[in-house]
This record gives sequence, structure tokens and C-alpha cells, in this order.
Amino acid sequence: MAKDIEVGGGHGDFHAKDYHDPPPAPLIDAEELTKWSFYRAIIAEFIATLLFLYITVLTVIGYKSQTDAANGGTDGCGGVGVLGIAWAFGGMIFVLVYCTAGISGGHINPAVTFGLFLARKVSLVRAIMYMAAQCLGAICGCGLVKSFQKAYYGKYGGGANELADGYSTGTGLAAEIIGTFVLVYTVFSATDPKRSARDSHVPVLAPLPIGFAVFMVHLATIPITGTGINPARSFGAAVIYNQDKAWDDHWLFWVGPFIGAAIAAIYHQYILRASAAKALGSFRSSSAI
Amino acid sequence: MAKDIEVGGGHGDFHAKDYHDPPPAPLIDAEELTKWSFYRAIIAEFIATLLFLYITVLTVIGYKSQTDAANGGTDGCGGVGVLGIAWAFGGMIFVLVYCTAGISGGHINPAVTFGLFLARKVSLVRAIMYMAAQCLGAICGCGLVKSFQKAYYGKYGGGANELADGYSTGTGLAAEIIGTFVLVYTVFSATDPKRSARDSHVPVLAPLPIGFAVFMVHLATIPITGTGINPARSFGAAVIYNQDKAWDDHWLFWVGPFIGAAIAAIYHQYILRASAAKALGSFRSSSAI
Amino acid sequence: MAKDIEVGGGHGDFHAKDYHDPPPAPLIDAEELTKWSFYRAIIAEFIATLLFLYITVLTVIGYKSQTDAANGGTDGCGGVGVLGIAWAFGGMIFVLVYCTAGISGGHINPAVTFGLFLARKVSLVRAIMYMAAQCLGAICGCGLVKSFQKAYYGKYGGGANELADGYSTGTGLAAEIIGTFVLVYTVFSATDPKRSARDSHVPVLAPLPIGFAVFMVHLATIPITGTGINPARSFGAAVIYNQDKAWDDHWLFWVGPFIGAAIAAIYHQYILRASAAKALGSFRSSSAI
Amino acid sequence: MAKDIEVGGGHGDFHAKDYHDPPPAPLIDAEELTKWSFYRAIIAEFIATLLFLYITVLTVIGYKSQTDAANGGTDGCGGVGVLGIAWAFGGMIFVLVYCTAGISGGHINPAVTFGLFLARKVSLVRAIMYMAAQCLGAICGCGLVKSFQKAYYGKYGGGANELADGYSTGTGLAAEIIGTFVLVYTVFSATDPKRSARDSHVPVLAPLPIGFAVFMVHLATIPITGTGINPARSFGAAVIYNQDKAWDDHWLFWVGPFIGAAIAAIYHQYILRASAAKALGSFRSSSAI
Repeated sequence: MAKDIEVGGGHGDFHAKDYHDPPPAPLIDAEELTKWSFYRAIIAEFIATLLFLYITVLTVIGYKSQTDAANGGTDGCGGVGVLGIAWAFGGMIFVLVYCTAGISGGHINPAVTFGLFLARKVSLVRAIMYMAAQCLGAICGCGLVKSFQKAYYGKYGGGANELADGYSTGTGLAAEIIGTFVLVYTVFSATDPKRSARDSHVPVLAPLPIGFAVFMVHLATIPITGTGINPARSFGAAVIYNQDKAWDDHWLFWVGPFIGAAIAAIYHQYILRASAAKALGSFRSSSAI
Repeated sequence: MAKDIEVGGGHGDFHAKDYHDPPPAPLIDAEELTKWSFYRAIIAEFIATLLFLYITVLTVIGYKSQTDAANGGTDGCGGVGVLGIAWAFGGMIFVLVYCTAGISGGHINPAVTFGLFLARKVSLVRAIMYMAAQCLGAICGCGLVKSFQKAYYGKYGGGANELADGYSTGTGLAAEIIGTFVLVYTVFSATDPKRSARDSHVPVLAPLPIGFAVFMVHLATIPITGTGINPARSFGAAVIYNQDKAWDDHWLFWVGPFIGAAIAAIYHQYILRASAAKALGSFRSSSAI
Repeated sequence: MAKDIEVGGGHGDFHAKDYHDPPPAPLIDAEELTKWSFYRAIIAEFIATLLFLYITVLTVIGYKSQTDAANGGTDGCGGVGVLGIAWAFGGMIFVLVYCTAGISGGHINPAVTFGLFLARKVSLVRAIMYMAAQCLGAICGCGLVKSFQKAYYGKYGGGANELADGYSTGTGLAAEIIGTFVLVYTVFSATDPKRSARDSHVPVLAPLPIGFAVFMVHLATIPITGTGINPARSFGAAVIYNQDKAWDDHWLFWVGPFIGAAIAAIYHQYILRASAAKALGSFRSSSAI
Repeated sequence: MAKDIEVGGGHGDFHAKDYHDPPPAPLIDAEELTKWSFYRAIIAEFIATLLFLYITVLTVIGYKSQTDAANGGTDGCGGVGVLGIAWAFGGMIFVLVYCTAGISGGHINPAVTFGLFLARKVSLVRAIMYMAAQCLGAICGCGLVKSFQKAYYGKYGGGANELADGYSTGTGLAAEIIGTFVLVYTVFSATDPKRSARDSHVPVLAPLPIGFAVFMVHLATIPITGTGINPARSFGAAVIYNQDKAWDDHWLFWVGPFIGAAIAAIYHQYILRASAAKALGSFRSSSAI
């Protein structure tokens, strides 16, 4: 247990593996299609992504309308600020991952689903259905915001992700890749079977660092791309906002997060879980830690 | 355990139910009226709602007086801002749910009590007594703020919930419904017996996501309705502020939260807990997960 | 377990008491004076209060110098704001209670020590020694800030607690009483033996709601008294700042917190723990819950 | 268990030691060099420090470019502010310690590695390799920010630590010493084997107070030194920014943190863990608590 924070190496508390990796998920799992729990998970992903976009985009639009002096904004500093927007994204992910973890695994993000699919934690069918539910949920969430904020939605950018002036496409793509890497790396760290064995009774804590990872990435990259790191979030806002600029840059917010998620999956599986070392025959060392 | 964050479906770790739902609470439970714990719970709800309104409305009034230049506010940016106000509401719910969870269940909100009553987790008598205690506590809390801030209380709106200019009644009602849905959905997720079985030793964590849900909803809807999602909070402020505008919109802050809580109860009981599926005869699939 | 958040009443999971209250601490415990752990606890209280005042008062002074335009402050909004100051107080209490809980009980506040003494959780000798260590630590912490910020310390009020203009003495006293009640009520809730029995493996979480309680009270009452709720904090700043105004109001910041702590002790012992009910002979009901 | 928050002294729940200190790490541990887990830990430290600098320095530069009116910044208040910058540093440490704790111990800071080396928790070889990986990671992280923010990186100070105008070298050094003391004291408190025995199932919580300690120190000392308390962070920024002023003060950000870490190690080992008392022969008292 003390292993968790203590420095590792040499002490070897875990000579016998006290955890076991679940078998890889099959590409197509016919049996899961017959279960209510599968459809329930898809509904939960849809609702969670809807609520995520509803709360976060409403925060963005509300903030911009409050601080726009031309619009009679009385108080340029009273709004929630970029810090408040970053909290809205990170905090909602914390709440929603907490609520849906036991139902659907709490993805709420096609890049997370993609990373877990690459690591063979979800079947192909499940991955595709989740992504569809997430995108549909995001569209509905942004639609709600537009209907509530008719006067301001279009005027203040609709919460859509765009590359800010002065940044190259390469910079925007790299920012999305690294940001998604931070998120998906945290997700893999939080759901690792070794961690679950060590922290046996507290998996419930995992949503907090995942939410904080989202919060941190927003603080850093809102000035560059508005921070996507979630293709459903970018897609939903682009569909409802529907302006050329948002669509021109839109590929960035799919390609970047998927590359970032793939790198995180590789980093976790081959470096941290030592699959590479195992493959090279040094089985003993990896099983000793 | 690993189930919590890991994707579900097909693995079936819980073929045998390792939890049991408590029996539904009776509508009228004569026995509970004879116990000190019942009256203690009502006192705890009263005190908690009083402290909730005292801290949050004092934060709202203090912020507005600090940043009002006409009032000699020296520093338009020093105040806590909308972000600070949202923290005050969310943070106090975290603290107070933590403190009262073991005494009264930590409702501090008639909409939460209503949702739990619909799900048959509290008796009718208890629900009515809690709501009365919450409303009375809220009135006392706002009364304290008024007596402390005589000069500013009326001038700065008394912390009362009103529909902001430019938003229709339907938008305000919908914002209250969805906001309360987010809160009560989180409460149901946190108190689910299945989750308690999985996370057996950490129910104490539940207040944190509940508090964050309140924080998030305030970030999003303060510009629209000032964010009610708690009829006692709206009622207490309206009674003490007692201006026409606050009373004209007041029904919104009862009808909206109660509808939102009811939808959350239905969503949790019939979709997520699969009561619907059970009713349709697919018992096997729901018990397998 | 599920008891924690679930509504109480009537279910009666705890018919047999699965916890036991420790015996009341003696007024004078000669044996503890012979142990290193006693002196170590006093050192830990001294260091923790020193660090608490150092970090928080430095944040206050740094913020005021940054935003003072007359002082060449280039950016009126870049400072941490009242929200940042409230975080500094609440966050440091979280960190320091976490660090010292196992050593000294993590009081860092004479009002907390006083409340726990009234509840017979600490001996009189220990209470007096803790308070002396806390006051001395606070003086040293403020002294460090003054030596670091020579140019600004006196100019920006030295972090001392004073009653703001426009508020009566009664309001200031009441604000201190209620604020301290919130804090000490949270401390009692977090350290209750019944809670420890329920949450057996997670006492480590208690510092978080305690820190949040401090954060919340600062958001609400900084505009009124600067928020004391900790006599050592007020005393240390008054000694180092040493201006008439700070000394004139100083009694408020001892009397208020001590009254608030006493009310919290009474509320917890006689209402929530049902000592009153027991005294009245209804032993059965209180032991059943 | 209840010991954690409850006041100590005299109750003596732990007469028999229910924990054992691991043996001191050897200076040179030849065996660890043969294990994949050793190299994996170094990679994890490199990646974590890279991500830490990337997110935090990007936040600093983005904030400064947003709020610079001369640069067409439209909104002096919309930026994340000093509070947002402090969150970026503290929050990333929380996330990264959480992710790397089980792999490398989660140092991400040469001062933490140095403190743990002094306490004989890591071997000399491991300490040196970690520090090299951390410095290299920091350089790469800052290099990424520079390549993303070409136009602004040099203009806004490159996130480098410098002594602010008006503060003496002694003040800057002392601020770094005390700030690092707060951090390393929290790390020792969180990883203490006695705490692990008490909180047996929740070591996973330790990253949160560690992250908050970093957050708090940044709130307090950003106006003085920009807050180093992490030599790798200061070194990486200095290498990439590469201006005279940053290099002139650079020794401060190695000497200060190393002194602070050493004091924290001594405080924890000799005062709190009572090694001093043991050495003086009063073995009984220290083993009783």
C-alpha cells in the first residue's frame, strides 16, 4: 500500500501479482448486445455529454455577455473569467465521471473511448455506439444553450473551438495532441488494475484527478484553440454554431485528440505496464514490481 | 471494484447481487415519530439551511457592495466575482452535506427531499417536516444577513432569485429544471446502494461531487435566474427581501426544481437501475450487471 | 455504511453501538507531561501556526501591493483577489490539518482547542500549552512577513483583523461567533467517533471539509471583519502590526470565536449526540440510531 | 484510526507498533539497475516534468498576452490571473503525483528527491538519475511552449523565476527555503509509514494535499520570486529563456529549495518521528505513540 507514494525500486512488496488484468475485450461482443446494461450505458453517455455541453457552453456565453461593455455589461470584472470557464469544464467532468463510472465507465469523450478501445478495454461495437451517443448528446446540449441564449449565442462564438489568430495549424494540432495525452494518461493511470489492487477500496476517487486534468489543460490552451481535447464537444458546438471558421478548423479537433489518446495508450501499455520489457524477455523484473 | 471506472458490459463481475435495496420507506412511519433521532434530524436540517443562506447571501451582498464604484468601492476587481459566489454555494453544500449526512441524510434542499421521497427513500411525514425546517432555516439565515448588512441588503437585491432581463419565463423554468436535474442526479448516483456496495468504505466522499454539481450549475445559470435549484434558498430570500419582482417570479423556483428532481428520480429508478427492464421481463440482464 | 448519505430514521442499522466514545480527558494529566509525544505536539502546533500566518498574510500583502495603482501596480485585475485570499486561508488549513492531525490533532486555532477542551477531548494543561504555542507561532509568522515585505507591511494593514467602517460592534461580534460555529461544528462532525466507526478507513478525508469551512467563512465575512475565527491569527497580526485600531477591536477576535466554539460544542454534544435525550431517560432511542 | 484527527496524548491506541519503517535505501543499489522498473521510473519522471512545465508556463504566457492592452488585449480581466497561475502549478502537481506515484514515487522536483534521499528513502544513484530526468523534462517542456508561443515567449519573461524589484537576495532565498519546506513537509507527512498504517486503504489521497501545498506557496510568493520551490522548473525555464537576469538569480532556486528540503527532512525525522528522543534513551515514550 505504502508503495503508492513511496519511492519504488528494490523493495519489492509485490513479488506475487495481487491483481490480474482483465482479458482484452473482443472486437465484437454479440452477447453484450442482448443486455439492458449495454443500452443503459449508451443512454448514460448521451445524457452526460448533453449535460456537459449545456453547462460549459452556457458558462462561456454567459461570461461573454456579462463582460461585453458594448452590450451594457456593467462590470467588466464580475464575470467568471477564463478561470471560471476552465473550472466549468473540469468540474463537470469530475461530477459526470463520478455519476456515470459505474454505468458506462464514464467516458463522455470520443478520445477517451478511442484510447480505451486501442487498449482493448471496450469492444469495437461499444466504442462506435458510445461515440455516436456522445456526439448526439453534445449537439443536443449546444442546441439547448442556443435556444436559451438566442440573443448572444451567435454573437459570442457559440462555444465553438477555433484556432486563435496568430497560431499556426501545427501549433493548434500539437496543443490538442498534448492536451488529450494529459487527459487520457490520467484516465489510464486511474483505471489501471494495479492501482485498483493497491487502492482496493477507493476507486471512487479517480474522477477527481481526471476532472483536474481537464481543468489544467483548459487553463493552458484556451488562448490557442479554445481547448477541444474532446471531439464530441467540438463537434456539437460546430454543428449548432455552424460558421465557416469553426468547420475549417474542425478536423484539428478530431485528429489531434485521437493521436493524443493513441500515444497515451501506447505509453501506458508499453512503457509503464512494461509490455515492451516483457516482450523482450525480462519477464522477471516486470513481475517483481 | 475496478468496475467503477472501467468500462462495463460483458465482464459480469457482479453475477450475484452483493447489495440489497432497502425496503421503500412507508408514507407514514409512526415509529419514527417516537425517536429523538427524528427530531434531531429536523433540527440539523434547520441549522444547516440557516448556515447555508447566511454564508452565501452574505457573500453575494458583500461582493456587490465592494465592487459598486458609486458606493466608494475602490477596487472593481478585488471582489470575489461570480466565480467566488458560485464557490460559496457549492462549497457550503459540500461542507454541510458532509456534516449532516449521518444525522439527517444531508438534504438542505426541498427539491432533494422531494426527489428522495418520490424514490421512497423518506416517508411523507419526514419529507414535509424537512421542507418546513429548510424553509424556516432559510428565512432565519437571510434575516441574519439583512440585520448585518442593513445598508446594503435591500440595495443589492437581497440575494433573491429573479429572472434576468431578456430571458423568457420558459427559459428560466427550463434552466431551473435542468440545473436541479444535475444536482439530484448526482445525489442519486452518490447514494445508490450499488455504489455503496462497490465503494464500501468511502461513502464519506459523496459530499464532494454533490457540492461540485451545485458549483457548476451556479457558474452556468447565475446570468439567467441567479440560480435557484433550491426552493428553500429562493423562498427564504424572497420572504426577507420581499419585493414584487422576487415574488412575481417565485413560482419558477418551486415548480422548476420539483420537476427537475422528479425527472432525476425517474431517470435513476427506471433507466439506470433498470426497473423498466425488470418490468419488461428481462430480469436476467439487469441482475447480471 | 450507506447510512452516511442515505436518509436516516427507522432503518436502524446500528442497533448495537459499533463505536465507543473515548473517556473524557482529565483536566490535568500528569502522565502526558512525561512523554515526548506531548512536546512534539506543541512544537507541531507552533510550526503549523507559523506557516499558516506566513503564507496567508504574505498573500494578503502581496495582493494589495500588486493592485495598488498609486504604487505602480500595472494591472488592477491580475492580483489574486478576495477569492485568492479566501483560498489561501482555507487551503492552508486543509494542508496543515492534514500534516499535523496525527501528531497534535491538527488544531492550529485556539478556538478549536477551546471547543475540544469543553467537550473534554483534551486536558486543561494541553489546551493551555497549545494556545500558547499557537499564539507564539502566529507572532513569528507575521514577523517573517513584515521582515520580507518591509515596504508594504505597514502600508497595507499588516493582515490585521479590524471592524470595517459602517459595521457595528455587535455585527462584528456576531459574524465572528457564527463563522467560528461553522468551523468548529465541522471539526466536531469530522472527528465524531460515530463517523469514524462508519467511515473506518478514511479519517484522512476530514481535513478537506475543515479547510473548505474556513474558505467559505472568509468569502462571507472578509468585508465585515477581515475574518478572524482564529484568535491566534488575529493576535499574531495585531502584535506585529501594532496599531491602535487593531488593538481597539482586538477583544472581538477572542470573545467571538470562543463563544462560537462553545455553542458548537453544546450543539454537537447535547443535540446531535443526544446527550440531552439520554439525560431525559430516552436512552433507547438514542442508542438505536 | 480515530487517532488521525482526534487529539493525541495519553490514550495510547498504538502501544504495539502496527507499522514498520522500511530499511534505509542503500547509497548504491546495484540490483535496481537491472530492473525495467528503474528505467520506467526515470521515463515517468521525465514525461511528468515535461508536462508540468508545458502546462504551467503555457498558462503564464497565455495569461500575460491576453491581458496586455498594448498587445490588443481586449479584456484586462478575462485572463486567469495570478490565482489561475497558482492553480495551474498546484493542480498539475496533484494530477502528476497521482499518475506517477505508483511508478516513480511521484517526485517531479529535485528538491523532493533530495529530501527523500536525505531521509534514505531513495538510493544515491536513483536520486541523481531522477534529477537529471527532471531537468531534461523541464527543458523540453519549456522548449515546447517557446515553439508554440514564438511571438510572446521572450516578450513575457518565458516563465522564468527572477527576484522581483525591491526584494533583497536574502528575502528571495528565505522565501524559497520556507516555500520548499511547506511542500517537502507535506510530502513527508503524506508518505509516513505511520500514516499509511492508520489510513491503510487510502494512500491515493496523498496527492491532493501535496498539490494544495504547491498552490498555497504560489499564492504567497509569486510577487517575490515568481515561486520556484522546484529547481528543475527554474532551470528549464532559465535554459530556454536564457536572459542574463534569469541566470544571475538562478543559484537562489537551487540553494533555497535544497536547504528547505533538508530542514523538512530533519524536522520530520528528528522532531516528529522522535528519532532524537530515541537517541536520548526515552524509547518507551516514542513507541507508545
